[in-house]
Amino acid sequence: MTELNSTHDPALRSWVESANLPGADFPIQNLPFGAFERDGNARTGVAIGDRIVDLQALHEAALLDGDAAIACAAATCGDGTLNRLMALEPRYLSALRRALSALLRSDSPMLSQVQPRAAVLLPRIADVTMRLPCEIGDYTDFLTSLHHTERHGRYKGLADPLPAAFKSLPIAYHGRSSSLRVSGGDVRRPHGQYRDAQGNVRFGPAPALDFELELAAFIGRGNAFTRPVAIDDAHQHIFGYCLLNDWSAKSIQWFEQVLGPFLGKSFHSSLSPWIVTAEALAPFRKSAPSRAAGDPVIMPHLNGSFDQRNGGLNLELEAFLSTAKLRAAGAAPVRITRTHLDNLYWTFAQMVAHHTSNGCNLRTGDLLGSGTISGADDVSRACLTELTNAGKDPLQLPNGETRTALEDGDEVIFHARAVQPGAVTIGFGECRGTIAPAFDASHATGASTNRSEAHA
Amino acid sequence: MTELNSTHDPALRSWVESANLPGADFPIQNLPFGAFERDGNARTGVAIGDRIVDLQALHEAALLDGDAAIACAAATCGDGTLNRLMALEPRYLSALRRALSALLRSDSPMLSQVQPRAAVLLPRIADVTMRLPCEIGDYTDFLTSLHHTERHGRYKGLADPLPAAFKSLPIAYHGRSSSLRVSGGDVRRPHGQYRDAQGNVRFGPAPALDFELELAAFIGRGNAFTRPVAIDDAHQHIFGYCLLNDWSAKSIQWFEQVLGPFLGKSFHSSLSPWIVTAEALAPFRKSAPSRAAGDPVIMPHLNGSFDQRNGGLNLELEAFLSTAKLRAAGAAPVRITRTHLDNLYWTFAQMVAHHTSNGCNLRTGDLLGSGTISGADDVSRACLTELTNAGKDPLQLPNGETRTALEDGDEVIFHARAVQPGAVTIGFGECRGTIAPAFDASHATGASTNRSEAHA
Repeated sequence: MTELNSTHDPALRSWVESANLPGADFPIQNLPFGAFERDGNARTGVAIGDRIVDLQALHEAALLDGDAAIACAAATCGDGTLNRLMALEPRYLSALRRALSALLRSDSPMLSQVQPRAAVLLPRIADVTMRLPCEIGDYTDFLTSLHHTERHGRYKGLADPLPAAFKSLPIAYHGRSSSLRVSGGDVRRPHGQYRDAQGNVRFGPAPALDFELELAAFIGRGNAFTRPVAIDDAHQHIFGYCLLNDWSAKSIQWFEQVLGPFLGKSFHSSLSPWIVTAEALAPFRKSAPSRAAGDPVIMPHLNGSFDQRNGGLNLELEAFLSTAKLRAAGAAPVRITRTHLDNLYWTFAQMVAHHTSNGCNLRTGDLLGSGTISGADDVSRACLTELTNAGKDPLQLPNGETRTALEDGDEVIFHARAVQPGAVTIGFGECRGTIAPAFDASHATGASTNRSEAHA
Repeated sequence: MTELNSTHDPALRSWVESANLPGADFPIQNLPFGAFERDGNARTGVAIGDRIVDLQALHEAALLDGDAAIACAAATCGDGTLNRLMALEPRYLSALRRALSALLRSDSPMLSQVQPRAAVLLPRIADVTMRLPCEIGDYTDFLTSLHHTERHGRYKGLADPLPAAFKSLPIAYHGRSSSLRVSGGDVRRPHGQYRDAQGNVRFGPAPALDFELELAAFIGRGNAFTRPVAIDDAHQHIFGYCLLNDWSAKSIQWFEQVLGPFLGKSFHSSLSPWIVTAEALAPFRKSAPSRAAGDPVIMPHLNGSFDQRNGGLNLELEAFLSTAKLRAAGAAPVRITRTHLDNLYWTFAQMVAHHTSNGCNLRTGDLLGSGTISGADDVSRACLTELTNAGKDPLQLPNGETRTALEDGDEVIFHARAVQPGAVTIGFGECRGTIAPAFDASHATGASTNRSEAHA
């Protein structure tokens, strides 16, 4: 774990003025990493205000020729994904962040070299298309909010709404990597099998579409197959974090779920484009959320003194909803959830230690979702199912619309920011998606005899 | 779907004599694809008898310069994985198989060019190290044997041992890609949390280790995101098949399972090294297994006339067990399971159509496991849990040993062969692994204060 260094200095300001605005997600203290398309090429970059530093362009302009560590880190950034940078030891990232900080600060000695070429070296974020920041081999989604878990157990009418294992280990399932998509654009309503109100099994556009507000960690260096990661080494395997919308077709999920979520989730999962590095979040570390009296003792392989002191983050998260009617009326999205990372029962280091405790290897770029970050308060319920008490209390929007599930045209937007007295607040950017109507399914049911004969 | 062509001719014999031996897995009618290491380089190849055709060496020797399709297929084989070949349209594979068949048959016009260079062009399989045949992005494991599912439901004491959805859709969960390994060598016993006989939660080497005998399909061409695959197009997305041992730590699984299998499976899954192509299996196609009277009608998107006529395979599968004591006594592995692919309730095409029905994209190299292929008969129970009636009736070995779970040193070996009157039987090679004792866990619990301080 990196200690605070010069890049965290709250007095730093950037010559990119938009980075200094109050409430900016990407001040010079943040420097989150992402990937984007420019002139048809995949590039990697770092956000500063409303600009993106094109790392390859900077490298080619010989503006990252500090010490060997910087040059080595910069040399990994040419292939359009961050995997090679993420696989390096943390000191390479530190060196690169220090070099970028020096380049971007308002009193930068390199200002005269960079500013005149800003259009080439720092395009506007609004002018590029963001991509997934790295290749994600495996995606795991956890279930670490006690309140989310308990509420869902109650909706199902379980005598004991919290699963027996919940307080012994961070419950998880394997997710689908292929359908992870970067924030923005359409989220196509899926078809699926579900039970209708009469209990009949149907196949069609899935009702009961929901969002789930999560934070996700990207693995930096992996671990060797068969070799678990010790709890107090686990932080060193986390490169950074992004926002995750674990879109859920509850109707499909309720019917299919025997061995966990499958088609109810795998139609689309959205990630915010920027990886906020664990290093940038160092000033926002806090102790792991405390446990209630009577909770089981944490097992040794999940109990680290460093993690207990530093495994939490002072991170506030919000979800906003916009509807077609709200947009037509020029109304702003409505905030429907405000929650905090404290609402997780397990730390990300505990997720890493648990995940590898059986020898399973994590690889660079792997993604670990936190699960829905719901808290005890009503305002912190982080999905529509909870916000509506499983549909019993529809969500009331200011224009008179109500929702028990997402409708076509609804847009969901997540924000998050790390806040700590004495530190400059840093943000995550947006994770955004709009429900698009299901495609006509006729193309996928083509069971006409003639058509099949043609393949025989 | 490819019709029978010259490569299927039962009269064909190879000048590689080991391919013509009765019971050979890899006669000239098979030509399965794999990847291997030779002189430190990753290569792709095709098995013939006890030899492996080095595709890159053949390509470099200009021995695959037939028509454009052959050249194009051969050109994909240079990077040590089969992904690029698998992504091509099926006609490229057909062309390559025809070229290889012509090269390897006993009356090959190229015999004089190839045979003298056989040591370079066709190393012995025994002299190379096999690798995973391709990069596997996502791995999905299904649960499609009614008998396996029903028996497990009974062991759990469920009133209705078959889940409600079982006959409506092929139940599945996402598996872990990173811990897929090619057949052979050690399968390390994992650590994990489980309940001991007193009901206390413990962490340690997992008892109740099991094997599960499965067939797995490799996806050739993928489908576009949000675009389902129609049932009668689904076969064209399957490149081929291999054997899969879905090793299971039942003790971990029983305790952790809330959202499906996780650490109970993700410590290691073994694949046989050879992809037997769907094309090579064409002579062994048969109708989809018939359903019982009263079973629900198959929904249109899973019901294709081509698939109903051709979605099954005449495939026999076996599992063998060897113990340290059996090996020390020079005794052969004991056959403990004999089953047939007919025991699956759903076809692989139905798995593909279901998997993509919500728009989820399958990618080239993705793997779909069938689930444990247990049948109604006692001999066809395809895991130890079933073979022992959940531990109540220990398995008796001929040397007096008994098993209710796998012990350290136990080796499990799978075989499979496609059998059809009038066709030359083709085999899958072996899927093999030996349980190795758990590592000392102390390295992973290093919660000493000094050690953690060093990271702070």
